[in-house]
Amino acid sequence: MRKLYDLAGADENRRFSPYCWRIRMSLAHKGLAADYLPWRFTEKEKIQFSGQERVPVLVDGENTVSDSWKIAEYLEAEYPDAPSLKLENGEVMFIKFWAETVLNPELIKFLLLDIHQHLTAEDKIYFRESREKLFGKTLEEVVKGREERLPGFQKMLTPLRLTLKKQNFLAGDSPGFSDYIVFGSFQWARCISDFSLLQTEDPICEWRKKMLDLHDGFAGKAVGYSV
Amino acid sequence: MRKLYDLAGADENRRFSPYCWRIRMSLAHKGLAADYLPWRFTEKEKIQFSGQERVPVLVDGENTVSDSWKIAEYLEAEYPDAPSLKLENGEVMFIKFWAETVLNPELIKFLLLDIHQHLTAEDKIYFRESREKLFGKTLEEVVKGREERLPGFQKMLTPLRLTLKKQNFLAGDSPGFSDYIVFGSFQWARCISDFSLLQTEDPICEWRKKMLDLHDGFAGKAVGYSV
Repeated sequence: MRKLYDLAGADENRRFSPYCWRIRMSLAHKGLAADYLPWRFTEKEKIQFSGQERVPVLVDGENTVSDSWKIAEYLEAEYPDAPSLKLENGEVMFIKFWAETVLNPELIKFLLLDIHQHLTAEDKIYFRESREKLFGKTLEEVVKGREERLPGFQKMLTPLRLTLKKQNFLAGDSPGFSDYIVFGSFQWARCISDFSLLQTEDPICEWRKKMLDLHDGFAGKAVGYSV
Repeated sequence: MRKLYDLAGADENRRFSPYCWRIRMSLAHKGLAADYLPWRFTEKEKIQFSGQERVPVLVDGENTVSDSWKIAEYLEAEYPDAPSLKLENGEVMFIKFWAETVLNPELIKFLLLDIHQHLTAEDKIYFRESREKLFGKTLEEVVKGREERLPGFQKMLTPLRLTLKKQNFLAGDSPGFSDYIVFGSFQWARCISDFSLLQTEDPICEWRKKMLDLHDGFAGKAVGYSV
């Protein structure tokens, strides 16, 4: 059976990595079953065989692939007859970098403490130490005042909002990897935090609902919060 | 002959509208010749037949089309055998709104005074009055301190920069409407202002050079500044 090493919390059913969600959704999109193996930050040795220290890691028969973009490319090449992720649209790369350099750096500042709270005891120590070093502040200081940052965050989403007012999905009439990239970020939040990021009437909220319902409600059924 | 009403300065060969440049490049992309008719802000009556007050306006035989997105859609539908603008990539819509709500609002604050300087006497009056009303400040006040805003502007271009480090064009291996959208914004700057927006070693600068060279150097030959 195909295996995906997938970031998990203390509750092994809580899966919250934005990069793993890209691949979870892509596998569902292509109708490919997989064992979603829970993996914790401190279990580096478990994925040592992949030659690097981060998830997602996909093991598919003889093939081991890591890095969400490379996994998506692998799935497109290996399963060309399954529904396309539309990775050939060059603009998907822009969406990827927008998510990684604009969206996620703001999201993390809402989520850092909630992530910490849901980890195993061992991961908690690792996470606090590594993230506080990265930010040069305590987790509490990073998250502080998140309510006041919400209007700025929502304004930053303007290009996404206007696009989703015009069309069903980022990729057009049907979803593609660009949708899974951006949805992965929102699903990261939803699976780990009860902090509400979007107004109910926001077109982004309607799109997220559609994404949660895709593939028999694959993402909607995941352990998370109803926000 | 096909006609495009195209924003011009006091020098009728100075064409600087970002929205017109999208269409100038798209026509060149499709190998479609056109008369590029100079049009000034205060010549509303000249395009009254189009039912609205802004350029670009394309007159193609019996058809009159305005709004750069609609013109691109029209060109794709009317000339399906000419090279595609790849408008079917849903993510192009996101690029459009990124350009219009993130990129252009910052660019205008560098360019406002340079635009004014290149207009006819009549347009100068109209432009100053309408833009100062819009911004609630004088043109001089809006532009003031632009050197200090440059690092922030260049940081804002991160998703664009990282994408163009990975691939030749926004649309992938070959250019598409997404490239013409973002290039239109940079060409707006280049045709009206000697203020340098990019470092020479910036991958965006290399991409712009490629764009200037496309279609026999169509954009590179345009009246503008070598910045």
